This record gives sequence, C-alpha cells and structure tokens, in this order.
Amino acid sequence: MTESVFDQAIAVSFEGNRAHASTHPKFHNMVGPFGGITVATICNAVQTHPDAQGRLAAITTNFTSPLSEGDYELELECVRTNSSNQHWVVKGHQGENTPLTATVLLVAERGELRANEIPFPSVGAPEEYAVADGEERPEWSNNYELRFVEGGWEQIAEGPQDDTTSTYWLRHADGRPWDYAALVSSSDTFFPRSFLRAGQWLPAGTITITTYVSADAHVLESAGTDILCSARAQWFGSGLHDQTAQLWTQSGEVLAVSHQLVYSKL
Amino acid sequence: MTESVFDQAIAVSFEGNRAHASTHPKFHNMVGPFGGITVATICNAVQTHPDAQGRLAAITTNFTSPLSEGDYELELECVRTNSSNQHWVVKGHQGENTPLTATVLLVAERGELRANEIPFPSVGAPEEYAVADGEERPEWSNNYELRFVEGGWEQIAEGPQDDTTSTYWLRHADGRPWDYAALVSSSDTFFPRSFLRAGQWLPAGTITITTYVSADAHVLESAGTDILCSARAQWFGSGLHDQTAQLWTQSGEVLAVSHQLVYSKL
Repeated sequence: MTESVFDQAIAVSFEGNRAHASTHPKFHNMVGPFGGITVATICNAVQTHPDAQGRLAAITTNFTSPLSEGDYELELECVRTNSSNQHWVVKGHQGENTPLTATVLLVAERGELRANEIPFPSVGAPEEYAVADGEERPEWSNNYELRFVEGGWEQIAEGPQDDTTSTYWLRHADGRPWDYAALVSSSDTFFPRSFLRAGQWLPAGTITITTYVSADAHVLESAGTDILCSARAQWFGSGLHDQTAQLWTQSGEVLAVSHQLVYSKL
Repeated sequence: MTESVFDQAIAVSFEGNRAHASTHPKFHNMVGPFGGITVATICNAVQTHPDAQGRLAAITTNFTSPLSEGDYELELECVRTNSSNQHWVVKGHQGENTPLTATVLLVAERGELRANEIPFPSVGAPEEYAVADGEERPEWSNNYELRFVEGGWEQIAEGPQDDTTSTYWLRHADGRPWDYAALVSSSDTFFPRSFLRAGQWLPAGTITITTYVSADAHVLESAGTDILCSARAQWFGSGLHDQTAQLWTQSGEVLAVSHQLVYSKL
C-alpha cells in the first residue's frame, strides 16, 4: 500500500532532540503551509521521539511567522515526566527564524468514566451530503473530502452572517485512518470564521491553536473514515477572533475539542 | 491606598530575562498555589518586561508539577516581534524543577469591528445573588466574592449531575479593578467540573489552561467591579476533562474566553 501523502508530509528524522521536517507542496495554503499539517508534524515528532511516554492529550502551537517552503527543524525538550503526564516544549527553526513554538502534553490512560456533556449535532450520515468543491479552495484541502452540513464555502458569498457555525463530515481523500496526528490536523481544517461574518474571503490566519484530545485508542479506532467537525466564533475584536471547535466520531463520541485565535481584518 | 493583595501576589523583580516571583500564602490552594495567580504572575512578568509590546491576547500555561511554597523564577524569552504580534516562551524554575511552561501572545490593537457571536447568559444583576460562602473553600477564594447564579459549591452535595455549568458574578474582595492579569486569574476561578459531574469533591487540578482575551483597554475599563463568569465541561475521559469558559462585562461584552484540561479521578 502506498504511503499516504499525509504521512509523507508529517515525516521527521531525528538528530538527538532535533527533528528535521519539510513543508510538502500538497499541503500549501494561501501563505505558507496549512497550519494543521504543521501541528501534525510537531505531534508526530514528539510521539516518535525515543523518550515519548503516553498518548497525546493537548497540543498548543503558536505561529509566530509564516514557514517558508522547504526544510525546518523542530527542537524538542522534554521538560517533565511523571507517572501520568509528560510535558514537552517545542521550537521550530528555519534559518535564523523561529516561526513556531509549541507545548505538548502526553498522558497515561487513567480513569473509567467516558462521557460527553455536550450534545452531538443533529446531522444526517456522511453519504447524505455532497462532497464540497470550490474553485478557490487552497491546495491542502484537496487531501480531504469535506461534506458540509452547514456553513459551507458557498455560504461565504451569501453576505455577512451573525452565525459563523460550520459543520461538516471530514475524511482523508485517500481513506487514511484517524490517529492523533490526523486529529490535530483536522482541528485546523475550518476556514476562518471571519469569512462568514464578513461574507467575503479576507486575509486571515491562525496565530495560536490548542487541541485537547479526549479519544483513547479505542475511541480513535472506532472513528472509521468520517469524523464530524463543527466550529464557530465566540467573539470578534481588535482585528482578531476566536474559534471553538468539536470533533466527533460518527457514533457520537467526542474525539477532541480545539480552540484558536485568528487574525483577520474586519 | 494600600496595594491589593492580588498585586502583592503577582509582583516580580527582574534580573535580565529572569523574573523573580514568590508564592503568596493568601493564594494557597489545596496543593500549591491557586493556578490563576500563577498565570497572572506570568502575565505580569511578560507585560512589565522592558521589551514587551502590545496587550495580552493569549496565554497558555502548563502546570507540569505543583509549585512549592516560596520563591520561583520565570525565564522569559521573546521569540518574535513584528508590527502586530509579539510571542514569548516562559519557563518557571524552582530549584532543579521546571513546574511551569507557558507561551504568551501580545498584540497591537487593530481593526474596527467588535462583536459577540455568543449570547450573554440570562442572569440578573450581581446584587440579586448572595455572596457564596463555604467552609471547604480554599484559601485563595477569600480574595474574591462569588455570587453564584447556577452551579454553586452547595450544588456539589446534591449528587451527580449531567450539566456541569457554573455561572457567577465575580469581584475582587477588595474592589480591585480588572486588568489583563486579573482576567487571566479569574479564568481559573471555577472549581473542577468533575465535582458537579460526580457530586463530590475529588482530587483534581488544572494541567494546561489557555485564555484568549478579547478586551481592549476600553472594554476593560468598562468592566467595573463585577464580571460574569460561566464555564462547563464538554467531555470526560481518560481521567481528564475539559472546561470551556466565558468572561463578560456586566453590559454584555465578552472580556475573554478560556479553555483548560483538568485531571480528576472519575
């Protein structure tokens, strides 16, 4: 079986605590690479580091400046390991620049209760919705199939909207299964909420994103090919807005929740 | 006017890029200091560093192990400054330990639009609710007055609940006004959502918290003495749960939103 382009894009090789990575042309965005694939690469680097213990529970990534096309290095520091948690600090280097900083939390599985407090959105099955197509869609999005339930790309052209919710079924175009790297990437697949608020495409980009992962290995395995993604903004101000998102299995389990801060002229 | 105990607790003194700080006995929690005051101290250190540019927009703090009572040092690194954003990486040191890591984003004010997408909760004015009292309340909480609208301490004893929402009016007991340090502290004033889920007090603590600040100086100034705080969990699993929170002015402006990951036996 051919390696998924996603796995090619997140591949790293280690030299001590430095992981070498490269941007991938199939994951280009409007400026620099798609942020989700960068977060997934950081996740992959920490997970495959020889000292890694536990599964991903939280990852915060700060985009300090755009990554340029080509190679970059992730400097990994394991700050603390105890019986249940492991904390990492990551810096991304490209030449003299530090375009990325991140912190990563790995955890041991504990506890027995698994429960969702928020309700699963009222949606039909993936096959009830058409695969989205858009001439303006960025290169990276061709690696995914999005089936919008609400708040799709075409809705941007309908003018300014007070509710910026987008909900869609998401799968890898090549059917790649869901793991932690794929989940954190998917949490950044939403187009900026300001596009719906303004009713137009605008210069915009993620400044900082955190994804908290609920899924243990069992829940991940149950995710199949399609996961449900839903996001909205809570506030706009100071040329910024937030985005709060939830990712679900088809059977209604929370896989992860994610929050980000976006700059966008408005 | 006497300096607020809050300001005493977040005070730092600099030696180059190292800020000296101390835990404050009036902000003790069950184990170590109240997390909110630690985040506020990090915020204060970055804001008062000679190189600081812009106002707080996002702060992520990871608690890798409990701070011990006494002195600690914050090692500040300004990773990137451009015309609109400044990114900091912070590590907290105490002896040989690194109990804290953090990233902080400062921004220049931009843009014209200010809007809330989520509705202000349906609540009465602060004076319509009694100031909460509880024998088991931790030391730090005496620096605040909480007036619960729903999900108060007394509700924990009512047994396991499916909705873990707590909403309350919050003020500093000494009437200290709201600024960025105070806001990030307030975002950690919620007791763990697992207490309502389980209907009992449990060992629990914040592992990582991020607060995104919407408020510019004008909104902050309009906050007066009382702000509205509301939080709930979205999921429980793997001995963890999340908490998503919103902070509001009395006139219905979003001040900040916050998200955290909590460990708690369940």
